[in-house]
Amino acid sequence: MRQINELNTSNRILMGPGPSDVHPRVLKAMSTPLVGHLDPEFLEVMDDIKQMTQQTLKTQNPLTFVVSAPGSAGMETCLVNLLEPGDEAVICIHGVFGTRLADIAERCGAKVIKVESEWGKPINPDDVKKALASCKPKLLAIVHAETSTGVLQPLEEISKLTKESGALLVVDAVTSYCGTDLRVDEWGIDALYSGSQKCLSAPPGLSPVTFSQAAIDVLDQRKTKVQSWFLDLTMVKNYWEGAKRAYHHTAPVSAMFAMRESLRLVLEEGLENRFKRHQQNHELLRDGLENLGFEFLVENAYRLPMLNAVKIPKGLDELAIRKQLLNEYNIEVGGGLGPFAGKIWRVGLMGESATINHVNMLLGALKAII
Amino acid sequence: MRQINELNTSNRILMGPGPSDVHPRVLKAMSTPLVGHLDPEFLEVMDDIKQMTQQTLKTQNPLTFVVSAPGSAGMETCLVNLLEPGDEAVICIHGVFGTRLADIAERCGAKVIKVESEWGKPINPDDVKKALASCKPKLLAIVHAETSTGVLQPLEEISKLTKESGALLVVDAVTSYCGTDLRVDEWGIDALYSGSQKCLSAPPGLSPVTFSQAAIDVLDQRKTKVQSWFLDLTMVKNYWEGAKRAYHHTAPVSAMFAMRESLRLVLEEGLENRFKRHQQNHELLRDGLENLGFEFLVENAYRLPMLNAVKIPKGLDELAIRKQLLNEYNIEVGGGLGPFAGKIWRVGLMGESATINHVNMLLGALKAII
Repeated sequence: MRQINELNTSNRILMGPGPSDVHPRVLKAMSTPLVGHLDPEFLEVMDDIKQMTQQTLKTQNPLTFVVSAPGSAGMETCLVNLLEPGDEAVICIHGVFGTRLADIAERCGAKVIKVESEWGKPINPDDVKKALASCKPKLLAIVHAETSTGVLQPLEEISKLTKESGALLVVDAVTSYCGTDLRVDEWGIDALYSGSQKCLSAPPGLSPVTFSQAAIDVLDQRKTKVQSWFLDLTMVKNYWEGAKRAYHHTAPVSAMFAMRESLRLVLEEGLENRFKRHQQNHELLRDGLENLGFEFLVENAYRLPMLNAVKIPKGLDELAIRKQLLNEYNIEVGGGLGPFAGKIWRVGLMGESATINHVNMLLGALKAII
Repeated sequence: MRQINELNTSNRILMGPGPSDVHPRVLKAMSTPLVGHLDPEFLEVMDDIKQMTQQTLKTQNPLTFVVSAPGSAGMETCLVNLLEPGDEAVICIHGVFGTRLADIAERCGAKVIKVESEWGKPINPDDVKKALASCKPKLLAIVHAETSTGVLQPLEEISKLTKESGALLVVDAVTSYCGTDLRVDEWGIDALYSGSQKCLSAPPGLSPVTFSQAAIDVLDQRKTKVQSWFLDLTMVKNYWEGAKRAYHHTAPVSAMFAMRESLRLVLEEGLENRFKRHQQNHELLRDGLENLGFEFLVENAYRLPMLNAVKIPKGLDELAIRKQLLNEYNIEVGGGLGPFAGKIWRVGLMGESATINHVNMLLGALKAII
């Protein structure tokens, strides 16, 4: 049996696809001694988080809260609550996370109609239109910021088409939330999930979600029980709202303390300033990487500022360089997923990691290595 | 919109049904700056946690890990992976958490055969025997420590009966783990889940689980996909073991740092010493509460040391006194759940909260109030 000593980690610079660096104020808030999950003081913390999540998502939805598990569980929350066996669901796939949406929708017993685009390109609204016309969709699900490819998916036209078809619009905003423009109400999004560990820069483990009245109506009209007890909104919402605040599960108190402080930091900075900061540092990084011979996977108009997917220049051993970055410079960047494994890097500029110093640290290290 | 200031909580003494008080070393470990969820240093943290979870559960099961969500998700993990539609499952119910097991098993499409006892009493092995003989059970699920009633359920005879029937034994050890004797291998437990926030005294949000080879065989022979993507062991296990350590979801890095330190504290104390400490402080609390007119719900032989369920003496306004304890003494004790709401208190002596000082604080406060 191995001897297990005090935790002794290296001081990493997190520039991968998440988690991102966490502000010291957030770490400090997280280390606050606990209160109970039904303590009036904790219920107030939940109210604070709800209010700030509404503000940062630009929504008035009363059913806005945080799932007590990572973003993948947020994805599952949206689908298991809105889909029943036999329903038809249009799922847009332009990367790993669209594929995951389709997998989960099938596990809900739904018939999945796929709209695909080449990975690295956005979904074409014309294809969406055809797919919506080919079935009676209960919902359309699409990834706003594909973390596997670095594509920013425009949503407004697809939202309009989805509304016209009578379906609900479900959006994955795991990587876009708090890093680029996102307007839940104005864009007509009915259900949305995100993650705590990307541009919000809280530790991983929580998934902010929001549901429109139309989504709640679908939930209220279900004929079958939600297949997941843990994610069943008909119960979870009684813990997050109403007079009684009924016990459902024990909330992750410390993680919620952290999230509250991360949200405060976002609002102190201001959303528009934050978006600008992500964009400006993306442009600096882009120029520097292009000078070093890296080429972006995604064309300029559809590029995510916080997730820079770049092709590895010929002749470079990408794995060896990533190891060197980690071991000699303490810098983490992400490798490719799925068909892009070994072919691209995913460089994150998320939340606290979207600074000029991060850009300079990485470019300086790469110049020395290459 | 409310003004949201820096987090400013009261210094609570946690003597409810969990979360319990958290050791400063755990809070300190949790506030360590993050490393990535695929960083070699984090994979080592996962290995550490796995090894210490095996030790504390007294098991050699290779498939021992931590679900990235609270105990309720651990419960769901065990059932969704082992049950398929049409399977028969014997579910023992002697409190809220047995009821939850039955609810989840039904959501898996299983036919549930219930074995019930009066809440506050353990399940009778004779009833288990009859139920097992009445069907072809895939599994039997039972709660070892019913947090809603304070009953410690003897497991050895029921395990023997379950094995004889050919069914798997699934055990809820949310409240017993690290607080009282629990022997996964010796007692023939095939699947078990717990929570981080009870006698382990880590913050809530994680669920340690373990699966025997027989359980893995059942998983390997499934005809249908696991209905939950997030909890699907066929994928989660590739993140926790094997050479590749494949990405599944982003693990809650900070919560895992905390859990690692909590496990270290448990092993430094020694499991048997820890069990003795829980028992001794339970006896002190019991004597004190009985002197004040409280009566235990559960008969002596089946009483949990870490969860003391006591009936409210006649004439006492239980809600007013709990509020006074919280507001004037910063002490949290739990109220009753379900049919026991307003009728009992649940006083926790869990992990870091199982000390003579905790007992004295509560008894001193109650003497002054009553």
